[in-house]
Amino acid sequence: MRAARLHEYTSDLESAFTIEEIDSPEITAPDDVVVDVEAAGWCHTDNHIVEGEMADVTSVSLPYTPGHENAGVVAATGSEVTEVVPGDAVIVHPPISCGTCRACRLGEDMHCPDHQFVGLDRDGGFAEELKTKERSVIKLESLDPVQAAPHADAGLTAYRAIKNAAGDLVAGDYAVLVGIGGLGHIGLQALHAISPAKTIAVDVKDEALSLAESVGATHTVNAADEDAVAVVDDLTDGVGARKVVDFVGSDETLQYAPAMLRTGGDHHVVGYAGELTVPAQALVGMEIDFRGTLVGSYTELQELITLAEEGLITVETSTHDLEEINGIARRLHDGEIEGRAIFTP
Amino acid sequence: MRAARLHEYTSDLESAFTIEEIDSPEITAPDDVVVDVEAAGWCHTDNHIVEGEMADVTSVSLPYTPGHENAGVVAATGSEVTEVVPGDAVIVHPPISCGTCRACRLGEDMHCPDHQFVGLDRDGGFAEELKTKERSVIKLESLDPVQAAPHADAGLTAYRAIKNAAGDLVAGDYAVLVGIGGLGHIGLQALHAISPAKTIAVDVKDEALSLAESVGATHTVNAADEDAVAVVDDLTDGVGARKVVDFVGSDETLQYAPAMLRTGGDHHVVGYAGELTVPAQALVGMEIDFRGTLVGSYTELQELITLAEEGLITVETSTHDLEEINGIARRLHDGEIEGRAIFTP
Amino acid sequence: MRAARLHEYTSDLESAFTIEEIDSPEITAPDDVVVDVEAAGWCHTDNHIVEGEMADVTSVSLPYTPGHENAGVVAATGSEVTEVVPGDAVIVHPPISCGTCRACRLGEDMHCPDHQFVGLDRDGGFAEELKTKERSVIKLESLDPVQAAPHADAGLTAYRAIKNAAGDLVAGDYAVLVGIGGLGHIGLQALHAISPAKTIAVDVKDEALSLAESVGATHTVNAADEDAVAVVDDLTDGVGARKVVDFVGSDETLQYAPAMLRTGGDHHVVGYAGELTVPAQALVGMEIDFRGTLVGSYTELQELITLAEEGLITVETSTHDLEEINGIARRLHDGEIEGRAIFTP
Amino acid sequence: MRAARLHEYTSDLESAFTIEEIDSPEITAPDDVVVDVEAAGWCHTDNHIVEGEMADVTSVSLPYTPGHENAGVVAATGSEVTEVVPGDAVIVHPPISCGTCRACRLGEDMHCPDHQFVGLDRDGGFAEELKTKERSVIKLESLDPVQAAPHADAGLTAYRAIKNAAGDLVAGDYAVLVGIGGLGHIGLQALHAISPAKTIAVDVKDEALSLAESVGATHTVNAADEDAVAVVDDLTDGVGARKVVDFVGSDETLQYAPAMLRTGGDHHVVGYAGELTVPAQALVGMEIDFRGTLVGSYTELQELITLAEEGLITVETSTHDLEEINGIARRLHDGEIEGRAIFTP
Repeated sequence: MRAARLHEYTSDLESAFTIEEIDSPEITAPDDVVVDVEAAGWCHTDNHIVEGEMADVTSVSLPYTPGHENAGVVAATGSEVTEVVPGDAVIVHPPISCGTCRACRLGEDMHCPDHQFVGLDRDGGFAEELKTKERSVIKLESLDPVQAAPHADAGLTAYRAIKNAAGDLVAGDYAVLVGIGGLGHIGLQALHAISPAKTIAVDVKDEALSLAESVGATHTVNAADEDAVAVVDDLTDGVGARKVVDFVGSDETLQYAPAMLRTGGDHHVVGYAGELTVPAQALVGMEIDFRGTLVGSYTELQELITLAEEGLITVETSTHDLEEINGIARRLHDGEIEGRAIFTP
Repeated sequence: MRAARLHEYTSDLESAFTIEEIDSPEITAPDDVVVDVEAAGWCHTDNHIVEGEMADVTSVSLPYTPGHENAGVVAATGSEVTEVVPGDAVIVHPPISCGTCRACRLGEDMHCPDHQFVGLDRDGGFAEELKTKERSVIKLESLDPVQAAPHADAGLTAYRAIKNAAGDLVAGDYAVLVGIGGLGHIGLQALHAISPAKTIAVDVKDEALSLAESVGATHTVNAADEDAVAVVDDLTDGVGARKVVDFVGSDETLQYAPAMLRTGGDHHVVGYAGELTVPAQALVGMEIDFRGTLVGSYTELQELITLAEEGLITVETSTHDLEEINGIARRLHDGEIEGRAIFTP
Repeated sequence: MRAARLHEYTSDLESAFTIEEIDSPEITAPDDVVVDVEAAGWCHTDNHIVEGEMADVTSVSLPYTPGHENAGVVAATGSEVTEVVPGDAVIVHPPISCGTCRACRLGEDMHCPDHQFVGLDRDGGFAEELKTKERSVIKLESLDPVQAAPHADAGLTAYRAIKNAAGDLVAGDYAVLVGIGGLGHIGLQALHAISPAKTIAVDVKDEALSLAESVGATHTVNAADEDAVAVVDDLTDGVGARKVVDFVGSDETLQYAPAMLRTGGDHHVVGYAGELTVPAQALVGMEIDFRGTLVGSYTELQELITLAEEGLITVETSTHDLEEINGIARRLHDGEIEGRAIFTP
Repeated sequence: MRAARLHEYTSDLESAFTIEEIDSPEITAPDDVVVDVEAAGWCHTDNHIVEGEMADVTSVSLPYTPGHENAGVVAATGSEVTEVVPGDAVIVHPPISCGTCRACRLGEDMHCPDHQFVGLDRDGGFAEELKTKERSVIKLESLDPVQAAPHADAGLTAYRAIKNAAGDLVAGDYAVLVGIGGLGHIGLQALHAISPAKTIAVDVKDEALSLAESVGATHTVNAADEDAVAVVDDLTDGVGARKVVDFVGSDETLQYAPAMLRTGGDHHVVGYAGELTVPAQALVGMEIDFRGTLVGSYTELQELITLAEEGLITVETSTHDLEEINGIARRLHDGEIEGRAIFTP
């Protein structure tokens, strides 16, 4: 089969991948599932992978095939697999988890100490086929694989942060969402689908804010033009927001919490571009939290896919041939492509 | 009546207060309550008050009477007061809150935007009498006022942090408590009273760790002698603790979180001596939270006092005449007095 | 002022009330608030009141003025009132609660052991003016008092049940709402506003189901024509619903729980027309709950009014002169009036 | 191996079982685990099994080997098993669950629609060996298998009910535990281990109440001699208990709820001897719940075993040879044996 292989870490996105013929994956364990990849999303983490920044946190050996936002059709299954049969359309939850540790049993399978992340710890979906396990596939009803794929990581990470935040939100509350890119525009839709809170979308690009408006943001703020803290203060009548959900996590946006939040509010940290520097007094005096969020669990992906199947969440995408991967990666890096780029091997 | 009055902010603890005869407080509003102070605890915050470090966050004008950890006997009540009658022994919840804002109605009265903190925003308990409101007194059954007083702030702050932490703790979990002084030794007892988790008490003084042992800590670690992170790692079989409850909040202890916690764990920040500096990646990758905790609510003080009435929590105290206040304040500052110092005006 | 007075309990709805001139209420306590009633809803409970069925649970003495779903404009305030001023449009939370008991402090003011329910324990809103307390009024921004009034009891009771239910609901879950009258059609809208669950509306009248459809029910079932249990089983692929919210509470609808629910589901009991008879084995074997719900709290009414102000909930109403009260009461009883009947004194 | 086999349903407990030599179970699937049974508890459900009352809810075909409270030592493991190795002491969680359904993933494995209950749906532990799956064994550190075995069902069911109840309990609350037999005396210890609430133990036998006292009940009431409702009312100063945990579930004890509970309280139904008959008005007016509880999950069994390993819970047991099973079953039925009867095959 054809696959986009990474042979060495490089900062040259124009030539990072080689398109090659390699052996197709084969069923070797009773719970294996092989998927014909129909849609594989490029994620910002793939930039970090290519540049070698994830080399320390993965045990993968080069060459290998990245790609962790995958959807497709089941091609083959191991002898004990009962949840899916060949021909089923599926999305692939990236972690392959053990199912028997306490984290897996409590629904937090992404905390499984033995999990492998497809496309990061082992071959992923920038190929015609990928191999995963029965525990990691979710059947699609009618959702287009291209719409589904970005939910496997970008959507799921946004959904988990939003679900955590929404548990505390009631009618009349404000949530500030910072960074309305791939994650942010899904997060906005998810928040409006599961919560009655009002939203304030913050970004530094007008196109991002137009996207925010088109998916239902109650208010938008261009932080390059306006003092975002002052705008939030004004919109909330001086009370502050109940939540900041920060898809950027830069040194600057991590400073939003004490200033934008009301007493008892929380800053959910999703993006991790920078460093948090804050006096302990700011956490104590206003009783605020900084809460980290990782990719979501399998059951959260089920919930998110249900929202997408119901049309409550749609993703901005562009589709590309796998052969274009080097050019696309570079153009994404340079901001020349809007929406999530999806390869259709 | 006699009162210990602060006439100007000073760093000279030996002469900060003047013992004076001033007018006793009088009932002027229908919900006023005047209390004969029998026990008024000195709190570390009083050092900050004396030195003027709280001047920015209070609207009090000098001279005034500090003292926010108070217990005594009701001396007089306003016309609408029904919850207590003269002669009732009471502890005083420091915030005087409005009772009609949303925070007050939801039980978070210390978040009331209009609250006044007795002994900080108005005259407190370093005097023979103090005036508060019906909403801020809790009847004592049989608890000695000297045992009760420190719970008004030190105990209550510890209890709220512990209660927040305990909600996530089950049998088999570990909680690390950092700083076993006034708050910490109450926090330890509270944790064991309401949760089956095991505790690891961390301090840099052997006497503090002896105190921790005497109140039931499962393990103790002297962080001056041992690598506390390594000890926690060892005690938890490499998994990490579910909670750090940090009564110190120094630059150094705030670094415990990523290293001591297991995935999904939380660092509860109670002390605020320093600054938190942490890469966003540490919060995201391990999905940990930093959670600020303020003084507790009235209903939490009810619960804490119940635990104390039942003998499940006892406080290390020393009692002193109000006239000794200057000397005591200095000796406390210099670490010459063990346990909470309680004035008995 | 004019008021509709009940002089004796009677089953004759055509002559139950006398329209009289009585003294207007006056401010006598510092926290009193007098409201010019602009809208007072007739509630099914008023039928029970007129017929004397509530005589045992109220200490009111006849003659008196019923009416517990009230909205209007503040006419006068006591000396200590700061939350509202004359001229403010308000809705009246029916319980007048003490504000100092533990239930009030924890937000459950309708559990206050000393509360009085306006229109039930004391004069209510079937009059030009009513007297309540500062703790029981919520300001309206732009919501029409006629739209607001039914939320004071019917809406609030529905909202509390729905909010309790929604806390467990995620995308993909089904909630069955039984009885789409005054409470039910508000409950449906509230559920869709705060939760992504799908709804199945059950009633025995086609008009009720038309109303259900018009306010967004995902599915409707006429239980007079179809086997509601079988329809729910079919719609949920044999799994069952996560929640039944039962606004009827008849002997028959209370039997829905074991048959309609999935394992671990709950039957929220709001209406109380009948008796629950169920083998303990049915609760244990499927691990289901029967959960009672009373009228909601003040803070829940704030949230509900916010949803109404935002246009997310609208109520079917008809308006009437107070003088028509006897005829209206009878016509409501006989099902001749659709929607909530609102008097505009 | 020797096994106690049930060849036909019978009401004659003196001859229900035949001790036979049958083939030992063999590893046939990669996740199989064979356990040498060292302790197999007799549970009241076994009486129902013998008498054929469970025939409708199980697909087992006679003859078979009951026994669902099992502990022992791993004898053999399938090729994919990594959690245990031969020689490990283990307790067996009775449900063998799939691990991939949503219930299993969310920690509620006893809700798995495909689970088989060992000793009920397939051969159990009244034999020298039993076969289960990797997902269903928990390693023991130092706990005696005889102490561990009763926790597999009796202890686990009690623990789940208590844990559900304890989530709402704070210092000062009262919980009434009804029926201090096998489940009840474990439940009492669990409640005191994880909660600061006070307990009122209710039974009709003095020996049961002596047991309750010996394991720490705050108060005891003999409902045969005293009016239990009046005693609870008195002990709680007329307020009522926050929780009733009912290990009996008879027509009579199911009536305790409205009378013994405070507003907002809950009646947790564990035993299922009778029928619940209650006006809907009782649930609504006091806002109380009836909550069913089934056997607990695997992770709850982990927590319970931790409490037992720490010495916080001990079980009253008597040990017996498997050959005595018919006599023991009869003597248990007739109340001639105190504590849980454990066979040691």
